[in-house]
Amino acid sequence: MSPAKVQPQQEKASADPSSESTATLAEIARAAGVSAPTVSKVLNGRADVAPGTRTKVEELLLRHGYRRRRGASQQSQLIDLVFHELDSAWAMEVVRGVENVAREEGLSLVLSESAGRLTPGQTWVDGVLARRPAGVILVLSDLDAAQRAQLNSRSIPFVVVDPAGDPGDDIPSVGAANWQGGLAATRHLTGLGHRRIGVIGGPARMMCSRARLDGYRAALETSGLPMDPALVREGEFNHEDGYSAALDLLRLPEPPTAIFAGNDLQALGVYEAARELGLRIPEDLSVIGFDDLPVTRWVGPPLTTVRQPLIEMAETAARLVLDLGRGRRPATTRVDLATSLVERSSTAPPSR
Amino acid sequence: MSPAKVQPQQEKASADPSSESTATLAEIARAAGVSAPTVSKVLNGRADVAPGTRTKVEELLLRHGYRRRRGASQQSQLIDLVFHELDSAWAMEVVRGVENVAREEGLSLVLSESAGRLTPGQTWVDGVLARRPAGVILVLSDLDAAQRAQLNSRSIPFVVVDPAGDPGDDIPSVGAANWQGGLAATRHLTGLGHRRIGVIGGPARMMCSRARLDGYRAALETSGLPMDPALVREGEFNHEDGYSAALDLLRLPEPPTAIFAGNDLQALGVYEAARELGLRIPEDLSVIGFDDLPVTRWVGPPLTTVRQPLIEMAETAARLVLDLGRGRRPATTRVDLATSLVERSSTAPPSR
Repeated sequence: MSPAKVQPQQEKASADPSSESTATLAEIARAAGVSAPTVSKVLNGRADVAPGTRTKVEELLLRHGYRRRRGASQQSQLIDLVFHELDSAWAMEVVRGVENVAREEGLSLVLSESAGRLTPGQTWVDGVLARRPAGVILVLSDLDAAQRAQLNSRSIPFVVVDPAGDPGDDIPSVGAANWQGGLAATRHLTGLGHRRIGVIGGPARMMCSRARLDGYRAALETSGLPMDPALVREGEFNHEDGYSAALDLLRLPEPPTAIFAGNDLQALGVYEAARELGLRIPEDLSVIGFDDLPVTRWVGPPLTTVRQPLIEMAETAARLVLDLGRGRRPATTRVDLATSLVERSSTAPPSR
Repeated sequence: MSPAKVQPQQEKASADPSSESTATLAEIARAAGVSAPTVSKVLNGRADVAPGTRTKVEELLLRHGYRRRRGASQQSQLIDLVFHELDSAWAMEVVRGVENVAREEGLSLVLSESAGRLTPGQTWVDGVLARRPAGVILVLSDLDAAQRAQLNSRSIPFVVVDPAGDPGDDIPSVGAANWQGGLAATRHLTGLGHRRIGVIGGPARMMCSRARLDGYRAALETSGLPMDPALVREGEFNHEDGYSAALDLLRLPEPPTAIFAGNDLQALGVYEAARELGLRIPEDLSVIGFDDLPVTRWVGPPLTTVRQPLIEMAETAARLVLDLGRGRRPATTRVDLATSLVERSSTAPPSR
């Protein structure tokens, strides 16, 4: 990376983002009652600044809408991508999407994991402030108010890739059309003639679970079919919960002839439950998933599922954050990409 | 990242790596007939240096065994990880391993893909020279001689994570015990009573394929079983090639009662071929894979496989490269971690 030495004459702050002038770094320093090099240190994420001074300077930078100008040699070469957990089955799809855009733009991708915490730690924030990436993309993670303020005060934009469909406040985010996906999956099953359709929702705390379930309900209602609460289950987005929810459903006195699983991993759990009960897919039971992970093509039989365009969502988020960094305002802070039904061999008309 | 401004008085070069003194940056500059700032530019990967000058300076840096000293504020905060292709099914396991070590060490992980090329492009090399990571980890990618010289001249160490088992020259690398894995897989099958065991090798150009196949051969020979060339197939490490090789094998007049696939994806292709031919696993056909990808637990039936410890291999590589960066010499330039048999439900005694 090029030297991050601050050039006071190149740096201006402004209360009005559309205005080109006003408060310089020196003026921020005067208002804070510190030296200009101290303001530089804060801007560069250096550790040798007293916490109280840092907070005061950050407040002033934010209040004055300070925007750092970067010369050609100061252009950031990095883009940051942060995951809540790297072991989610679709994490690699998101990495590939961001990497595609990074490569196009000649940027290098810095990858972090918040290690199961909902917000990345202060070590990560300090690293970001020091390396000053062109932008930050968060996946299912979120920043707390202080962290947002720190990035904002350095003009480092951030965007959330949010397959869960639950962005906070007005944070720019990219998601998928979960409700439409639930509708399409269920209509596919009613179209095949299914009348008793079980559903395994994802965890109710995630908006995407609710949206998919609501899509299921809307499809039933618009087909004139009753919604039977006995056919609705909830579970985490993993194989185990799909398995146990399916066992439950398939042991009902009147079991469903089809199951719409909350995601592909749950659908693989449904496969296991069906095998255990000696049910053939799709002859005895139709199964449909959500996500379209690569593995769904390889299981037996290949899984019919709702495709969530994870690579494209990640690409969109990366372009959005780079646009924000270049001062372009997005038309909307929330972009939902379309989901689509992928028909394979796990769904068929009911045999009874 | 902290300013990369060169401090000539902190930088020394030495023909003897164990010696602490000799050629300074100024002396390198004199020998090259250029100014000290020009040598700095070369060290920092700046573009504004004539190619001829750059080559000359790099040669001198290399010849004098120049080692850059970094002060506390110049400690690199980054570690670079480069993939040949990010869509390999086990890439995420490797990312997780390197990320584990990066987090422990307070480093951020820079992830790149060489986009199918065997060596990363010059853009990547320029980026590495400019950001000066603590080390570089390559996965199945390799550097050409010029790229190695460029990293060497800046004292940026690199290590190859090499599940293919084919490291070049004396590049430090971490792999897995592929031969032992092939031996264990085949012994598991002979131990169950199988006498006709088909094998699908990976591509012959990859050393890991040969090692696994040789392990298969050794297991047969030490069990006094003949090696039947009709039972040996070769294919790329994907689902499609596993499927077509298995169809081939299972349509033989005397088909095998068990198949050892080159990796897990091939094994899933064997599953599909068996389904198509109406063969039950493991009753009619035993199947064993290699890698132990997460998905192998979820397929029906769960796959018996040889575990290649990808996360641990990546962790080992990351620790090795950081050790190299701290001037520690590894005991050996090649580390092979143990493979182990994971018994699940796809293998059983033959029924005929």
